[in-house]
Order: sequence, then C-alpha cells, then structure tokens
Amino acid sequence: MATTPPTRSPELRKDPVTNRWVIFSPARAKRPSDFKSKSPENPNNNSSSCPFCIGNEHQCAPEIFRVPPDPNWKLRVIENLYPALSRKLDHPNGQNDDSSSELSGLGRVVPGFGFHDVVIETPVHSVQLSDLDLSEIGDVLIAYKRRIEQIKQFDSIKYIQVFKNHGASAGASTSHSHSQMLSLPIVPASVSTRLNSMKEHFNQTGKCSLCKVQSKDLLINETSHFFSIAPYASSFPFEIWIIPRDHSSHFDELDNKKAVDLGGLLKLILKKMALQLNKPPFNFMIHTSPIQITDSEIPYSHWFLQIIPQLTGVGGFELGSGCYINPVFPGDAAKILRELNVPI
Amino acid sequence: MATTPPTRSPELRKDPVTNRWVIFSPARAKRPSDFKSKSPENPNNNSSSCPFCIGNEHQCAPEIFRVPPDPNWKLRVIENLYPALSRKLDHPNGQNDDSSSELSGLGRVVPGFGFHDVVIETPVHSVQLSDLDLSEIGDVLIAYKRRIEQIKQFDSIKYIQVFKNHGASAGASTSHSHSQMLSLPIVPASVSTRLNSMKEHFNQTGKCSLCKVQSKDLLINETSHFFSIAPYASSFPFEIWIIPRDHSSHFDELDNKKAVDLGGLLKLILKKMALQLNKPPFNFMIHTSPIQITDSEIPYSHWFLQIIPQLTGVGGFELGSGCYINPVFPGDAAKILRELNVPI
Repeated sequence: MATTPPTRSPELRKDPVTNRWVIFSPARAKRPSDFKSKSPENPNNNSSSCPFCIGNEHQCAPEIFRVPPDPNWKLRVIENLYPALSRKLDHPNGQNDDSSSELSGLGRVVPGFGFHDVVIETPVHSVQLSDLDLSEIGDVLIAYKRRIEQIKQFDSIKYIQVFKNHGASAGASTSHSHSQMLSLPIVPASVSTRLNSMKEHFNQTGKCSLCKVQSKDLLINETSHFFSIAPYASSFPFEIWIIPRDHSSHFDELDNKKAVDLGGLLKLILKKMALQLNKPPFNFMIHTSPIQITDSEIPYSHWFLQIIPQLTGVGGFELGSGCYINPVFPGDAAKILRELNVPI
Repeated sequence: MATTPPTRSPELRKDPVTNRWVIFSPARAKRPSDFKSKSPENPNNNSSSCPFCIGNEHQCAPEIFRVPPDPNWKLRVIENLYPALSRKLDHPNGQNDDSSSELSGLGRVVPGFGFHDVVIETPVHSVQLSDLDLSEIGDVLIAYKRRIEQIKQFDSIKYIQVFKNHGASAGASTSHSHSQMLSLPIVPASVSTRLNSMKEHFNQTGKCSLCKVQSKDLLINETSHFFSIAPYASSFPFEIWIIPRDHSSHFDELDNKKAVDLGGLLKLILKKMALQLNKPPFNFMIHTSPIQITDSEIPYSHWFLQIIPQLTGVGGFELGSGCYINPVFPGDAAKILRELNVPI
C-alpha cells in the first residue's frame, strides 16, 4: 500500500504574466506522480471517411497552401468548413478596435470578419504530431508563420490565435492530427491583460519576465534556443510553457533553424506528457503579440507556447472567479517530467 | 425534414460588465431551438451511502449551522471535507492583498487561508433545488447571506465566491443537491475587471449597467424585485443572468422577502432550462462585490446571479484567448425561454 506524503499547506500564487491568482491545494490531491488521464484520447478515430486524409482533399473546404506543393503533400493549410468568423464578410479596411467599434447601447459590436484556418499536420490518419520527426514538426511551425505573414496584410485583423485541440474532450472534432488558426478583428482582453502585466513587471524590474529561467526547480528540459518550465503559478496540473531564450515579441520571428529546435523540444515534452499522464487529451496555444504592433512598441512582450493536459474539470468556482484550483505544485510537476526518460 | 433557417452573419460583441469579447457564430450551429444537452445529468446518483442525506451527518466534516436548528433540518451548512483552502492555517490578521503579499521573485504568494463551505440544500437525496418551493429556495439564499455575514468578521477574507455545480460534468462530486462557498484572501482578477468595467460605464453614462433591462428582446422573465435576461454578450449558449431591480452592490443586502421572490424566479428559470435543454448539467455563480468594500466606495457595482447550462465544450481557442464562441444569439435564446410554458 502506498504511503501518503506529508500534506503541504495550500497557498495562492499570482502569475506575473497572466495576472491570475491560482490556489495550490495539495490536500485535495492524490500524489503528483499518480495523476493520470481517464479520458479516452481519441474516441472518434474513424479513418475510413476522414476528409483530412491524403486522397480526400475534395471533401475539404478550399486549400490555402500545401507543403510541398505537389500531390504528395506533407501538410496542408485549409479553410475551416465551419468557420467561427467569415472571410467573405464586408469589412472596414482599417481600425476595428474598441475606439471605432459600434456602440449599440448594449455593448460594443464588430462585424464577424476573420479567418479560421486548419493546419493538417500529416497526410496519414494514425500519425500524431509527436510521431513526426523534429524537422517535420518544424515544418508545421513554419506553416503557422507563413500563414501569419499572409494574414498580416489585412489591416483589420488584430490578433491571431494559433491553437491545437488533441482528443475529443479537449475540443477536437477529428482524431486526424491538426491545429487551428483563428484571426480576429479585435485584441482579446486576456492578451491586453498579459501585455499590461508584462509591461508592469518590465517597468518595475527593468527585465522581461520570461527572458530567463526564473528557478531551476521549475525547469523541465532545455535546448539551444528554448526552455520548458512548469510555470510558478500554473492554472492547471502539469501545465507546461515552452519559451524562446532570445527575447522575441512575435511568434512569426521564428526562423527555420529555431523551428526545428522547437520541434524537438515540443516532441520531447508531448512524449513525456503522454507517458507520465496516460496519453491525456491536451491543448496547446501560442501566446504572441498583436500583429499590427511592432517590437519596439512592446519591448516587454515575449511570446511562448502553453501546453495544458486535460486532467481536471472546471466548475462554478473557476467560471465565477476566473481563479483555478491546482492540486499539483509546479515544482513537483517539473521534477517528475524533468526526471522522466522517454525514448525519442 | 427540418428546413435550415437563413444564416446570420457572425459578429463580435463586448460585454460591458465582464469586458470580454464573444464571437457569435450561428453558421456553426444547429437551430437555437434544437440545442439539447447530451451529458448525463447525474451519473453518480448513489444515495445509499450519501453523507449529505439526513441521518448520515456523522460522515460529514463539521457543521457550521443548520436550519431549523434541530434533528429534522431542512438545510445544513458544513465544512468541505476536501477544502481548497485551510481554515486552520496561521493567517495575518489584516491585509492580504497585492500590496502586502510576499513577492517571491517568481510572483506574488499568499498563504492559503480561507473557508470552503458546503450548503446542503435539502435532507433528501432525490430532491433537486428546483423541486423545492419558493420559500425553501429563499431559505438556501438566506443561508448564503448568513454565512457571508459570519465570514465578514475575518479581515483577511477579501471575496466570497458562492457557486453551484449540478451534474458530474459541471463539477459536482455528488448528486445530492448542494452549493459551495469559497472565501478567499484575495480579490480575483475577474472581479477587479468587472468592477473596473462597471465603473467605466458609470463614469461615461452616469448610469449603472445593470439597473434596468437594456432591451426587451433579451428579457426572459421578471418578478417584483428581479428580472432575468440572456445577456447581450453571453459567453455561453442559453447563459442567463438574474439581476435585482434595486441597485445593490452586495448579495448579502438581500432581505427575506426578496429572497423568496428570487427563489421563485430561480425555480422558474431552472425548470425552463431543464425542459428546453434536456436537463443539462449547469453551474450558477453569484457575482457580488468584495466584502471589505462598502457600497459608497463602489456606487457603480450591482450584484447578479449567472447561470450557465453546459452545452458546449471549451478548447484551445477559449483557453488561449479568453474569448468564447457562442453559436446562439442571446435574443434567440431569450425568445425561446420567454415563450416556454412550464408547470410550476
């Protein structure tokens, strides 16, 4: 029978990047090393009629580009068949932000112009992102960059959210490995909050809050150009951030060499997460800066990639307060993942 | 075969209370009236060993009070057996906010002192909140108020989040009807954001943003002292707010008469939601003001009760951007619920 470790007192921590309070409450938890996903990873694993598979391109919404540009593609960027925003809508060719949005008397409103794209990461249904080799994952990251560079031409797009849903309960509608890019005519409040928090830290300390590993205890793995940590005030158990070493405000400053380096670290982290946490459903999100703002305007901003394995649910407390209850201290999560050996 | 209604263009709306952008995207949806929950309401419906049932009080954590104060109780307020915060922790008897929290070099940190209480709403396992009569639901609301008044004595508690999780997938660990109160040594960022948004609206217009129904199209039902609406920028399909007519910053200003009135409206809305949406799991949250701040300091603040039926999942876009995609326009949700007849 397993012995119970001594209980640590709960504490609240405020993240200097997200500006959110998180309750760390180990008394509610099993041991950190006992956390395992109970959700099926991919219940909708039917490949026979998958429009994302090679050969079924005609079942998809229009293609934006493919890599390489021939029938034997390795990845495709296509329109989402059920887009959240409309790329056909009449749109003002200019400012769509708070200052010019229409005030209806009930609140501000902006026409739903935007792009909702899908990145098909592999032609093969059964291959997952972490099965690809470093340079292939690098190609996926470079595809995000290339699409961002195209969308930047639209003045009315203010922010691009790149994200991946893996597993049905993490929001994926198909098990064919893919990610999404939603280009918005507004800057989300959480992005403004993040920039303001980082600015405040920068003004107080003269330093960027993400430019170096703040604590060796929180480090998981590192490469030449990136490091991964369990952030000090993680909202979720085993939440992981991958951060570029070189100060950079926009994800699309990534070059080919760094993309392969990041591909390697992302692969390692996804493999470790799958092994330690029983192949959990997960989301990853790229937190970058608004596209119409230049580096020199936001010297305090530093992009990063956030990975959230789905291990706990969300209830009324989180919905109401915006605070999360995390049963695993980040130092414990980091140690477990740092010390884990996985074959790559 | 059902005909498809003409597709409305997507739009983004910003809520003047929460300050959040929401994407309304009807093209992704079935018809508003076809929204039904697919989640089992209460899979963990085992009453034989339920500690919340009358007669099993000895299986529970300590009681705080019961109503009435005798063996035949109708409701009990008890400590949570697995509290997120510790009521036994040494705590500074004073300011615990940002200005005095310890800065660890990684972020701010506060000891996890607080109260995590459970309100058992009925002695009978199979009875749900909406099965109680108006005055019994009023008693539950008055129990929240009484407990808030007790906790107010602790200077280091800054905010009390009252919430209810109904259904396993909404976070409920038991199907015995209950709600929770989590008393925090900090003010959550979303509460500060809400107060700032309401202050800005008040300063711009001279009016409170919640003091009257802003649009008849969004009204669902009303009583002498409360009205219910589908808010203009609802984050979730069929999200409902119940708002007191009289301007009031703190929930605990509720008197017995208004509690019964609110009990009646809450019962009606929960019954309508169950009928229209196929008994969905749901959360409700009371959004009040920080307890150590007086009404005169925040003349723009107005408390309300938010109800969120669980109909859609959350993925990487929502986690990353803090924006939600809502497939149902609030005017459509309000019309459906307003016109629905339920036996009470």
